[in-house]
Amino acid sequence: MTGPTFSAAHPLPPLADPRGVLDPVTLARALIRCPSVTPRDEGALDLVQATLEGLGFRCWRLPFASPGTARVDNLFARWDSPAGPGRHLCFAGHTDVVPAGQATRWSVDPFAADLTDDGRLIGRGAADMKGAIAAFAAAVSRHLRDGQGAERPGSLSFLITGDEEGPAVNGTVRVLQWMAEAGHVPDLCLVGEPTNPGRLGEMIKIGRRGSLNGRLVVHGAQGHVAYPHLADNAATKAMRLLMPLAEAHLDDGTAHFQPSSLAVTSIDIANPAHNVIPGEAEALFNIRFNDAHTGDGLKAWIAETLAATGVPVTDYELELTVTGEAFVTPPGPLSDALVAAIGARLGVEPTLSTSGGTSDARFIKDHCPVAEFGLVGATMHKADEQVPVADIAALSDIYTDVIARLLA
Amino acid sequence: MTGPTFSAAHPLPPLADPRGVLDPVTLARALIRCPSVTPRDEGALDLVQATLEGLGFRCWRLPFASPGTARVDNLFARWDSPAGPGRHLCFAGHTDVVPAGQATRWSVDPFAADLTDDGRLIGRGAADMKGAIAAFAAAVSRHLRDGQGAERPGSLSFLITGDEEGPAVNGTVRVLQWMAEAGHVPDLCLVGEPTNPGRLGEMIKIGRRGSLNGRLVVHGAQGHVAYPHLADNAATKAMRLLMPLAEAHLDDGTAHFQPSSLAVTSIDIANPAHNVIPGEAEALFNIRFNDAHTGDGLKAWIAETLAATGVPVTDYELELTVTGEAFVTPPGPLSDALVAAIGARLGVEPTLSTSGGTSDARFIKDHCPVAEFGLVGATMHKADEQVPVADIAALSDIYTDVIARLLA
Repeated sequence: MTGPTFSAAHPLPPLADPRGVLDPVTLARALIRCPSVTPRDEGALDLVQATLEGLGFRCWRLPFASPGTARVDNLFARWDSPAGPGRHLCFAGHTDVVPAGQATRWSVDPFAADLTDDGRLIGRGAADMKGAIAAFAAAVSRHLRDGQGAERPGSLSFLITGDEEGPAVNGTVRVLQWMAEAGHVPDLCLVGEPTNPGRLGEMIKIGRRGSLNGRLVVHGAQGHVAYPHLADNAATKAMRLLMPLAEAHLDDGTAHFQPSSLAVTSIDIANPAHNVIPGEAEALFNIRFNDAHTGDGLKAWIAETLAATGVPVTDYELELTVTGEAFVTPPGPLSDALVAAIGARLGVEPTLSTSGGTSDARFIKDHCPVAEFGLVGATMHKADEQVPVADIAALSDIYTDVIARLLA
Repeated sequence: MTGPTFSAAHPLPPLADPRGVLDPVTLARALIRCPSVTPRDEGALDLVQATLEGLGFRCWRLPFASPGTARVDNLFARWDSPAGPGRHLCFAGHTDVVPAGQATRWSVDPFAADLTDDGRLIGRGAADMKGAIAAFAAAVSRHLRDGQGAERPGSLSFLITGDEEGPAVNGTVRVLQWMAEAGHVPDLCLVGEPTNPGRLGEMIKIGRRGSLNGRLVVHGAQGHVAYPHLADNAATKAMRLLMPLAEAHLDDGTAHFQPSSLAVTSIDIANPAHNVIPGEAEALFNIRFNDAHTGDGLKAWIAETLAATGVPVTDYELELTVTGEAFVTPPGPLSDALVAAIGARLGVEPTLSTSGGTSDARFIKDHCPVAEFGLVGATMHKADEQVPVADIAALSDIYTDVIARLLA
């Protein structure tokens, strides 16, 4: 597969100053100029690797493939302090981006990464999440060059995948397996996803709700409306089955989660004949659930709830797929450091949230405490994805402070 | 519009014997050989008119047209006894037929009307209802030639439309208006629709349930399943509105009717995205109702029932169409005569039913008592529509007896 190529309009300034301290905005621009739409890489991982090797990191390229999916390249990079072992902080992110979509809907070339006169960086991946990778790399460079990084014990690492926006099969989950086998499990992991809905510093994510997809196919017996006793109306039966689900009160929310919710997302019969009682109906539903539930527990609850309607279980088919379990990292050293650094730099107190869609944090939580904090996500996946240049600088400052607090 | 033409394979025997007594089977075959798929006539009405004029009937051709519909020809024919005025019995029927459909699904040419070796007449309109028209015309010919028709006072008439299977706008309803204005309103009307589900003599129809079609469009607010508080689920709201309708007990049936019934016939959302709460849902439903209800009464009940759900009336649109009111002709002279004639000829007692779909009786009932009795309808509207030749003969005998009993 060969996509469009884009030529950057203006040459970039140097990535680092003479002491080796990186400029996060320039590094973000350089990354955006690699049109790394999943599963393509286009030099993005090479650029991260070269940058981190320049800071003294050891790097491992970890390409993975699975039947039915594209081969994806990944990078693990680690720096161990000469002052000896200590806390191991890992930064997790992805260099792959979603497609630009219709080029005409952008006001600029989505991969040129030029800056606007009013200080915005527009480009695919600016918010999600090349800007955050650059901000963390720059923060590390300041820790090592400006700060007393080499005098403090501990380790820093990067888990960078090229398969977050795609099937997420050959990316973070496989790298984490490799890290576990190779003795690289970190103590804490910071994911650089864009967590702020509208303003930098608003929101840290410390967990995510789980998600369950359901498909219900209801069988009846088709017939003429004039002879209802000869038919078995699948529409009515579907509603009898679905209403107890749709109206269920799952919980009142938990310490870190909003209440769980179930949504019937589609009901389809497609019977155009006013005089025909339908013999089949299909419905889709989704549950977003908090840590009061597990996927298996909800599967059992759904089966019980449907059975309690009195509709014979032989009259319907049910497919249930748990696409993610609920998880939370209760407030601790990582979220404390983020809250303190955000307050110091921006003067705001972030919400510790578990809202929103999924991220690779769902895999990382099985290995170590994880929290997410990055740029403002308002334009992610849209045309003219963008972030203020000042936000990238501020995020890099916050990351620098977090590193200092955690590797103290 | 030009359809296929069919050539009859074998010449027909004479329609009548030397005394003018008609052979109902031959007349039915001759009518089937006119491929009178609505709104085409193809000589069918001319044949009926010529036949009845031969029996001494006065005939009026009554073509009607309305904007947006095809012009349709109709026939009213009347015979008044030389013995003076008396009861006026009208036979109502239609010469139009539904399309043959795929010719390959038929075992014979659908318009050739040849007889099978085992005594069946296969062809489009055999049951619905050229066979019954032929049977009644033959019955009239026997009444006039064989019986003492001319010695008994009274009148016989035929109301034959070419627009029963189509929009039914330029047919029976318009002819009845003309009859009312011209002083031809009968005392009793016998409709020759195929009323018997499986065996000749099983069922007379003395009324019909009413029918109401409903379309409900429910508006909500689309949103992401992760943020249910920002959305308003149209699927749930549609079910809240529909369930009280679907589970309503309308009545226990009345003297001549089975209970009224409501069927939700379709619910459609067509939302393929598991993570999107739907913002709109559409549902169709139908009510078949007995004489405990009127269309207007049910419209009011539906509006009240939906309002009682608490869903704001501004959140949905409702279209209600009454396609027919419930009606019944309580047992009386016409049904009595039919029951007696059926019992005498076949030895069975027919059910007086109000079941099934609509017919032109819904228009006639506004003018005079009406009952329906014809052939077996099991194959009507299907490929290989057919009736036993013996049934046409028996039906003609029954009609002959009915005329004798009513014009006594």
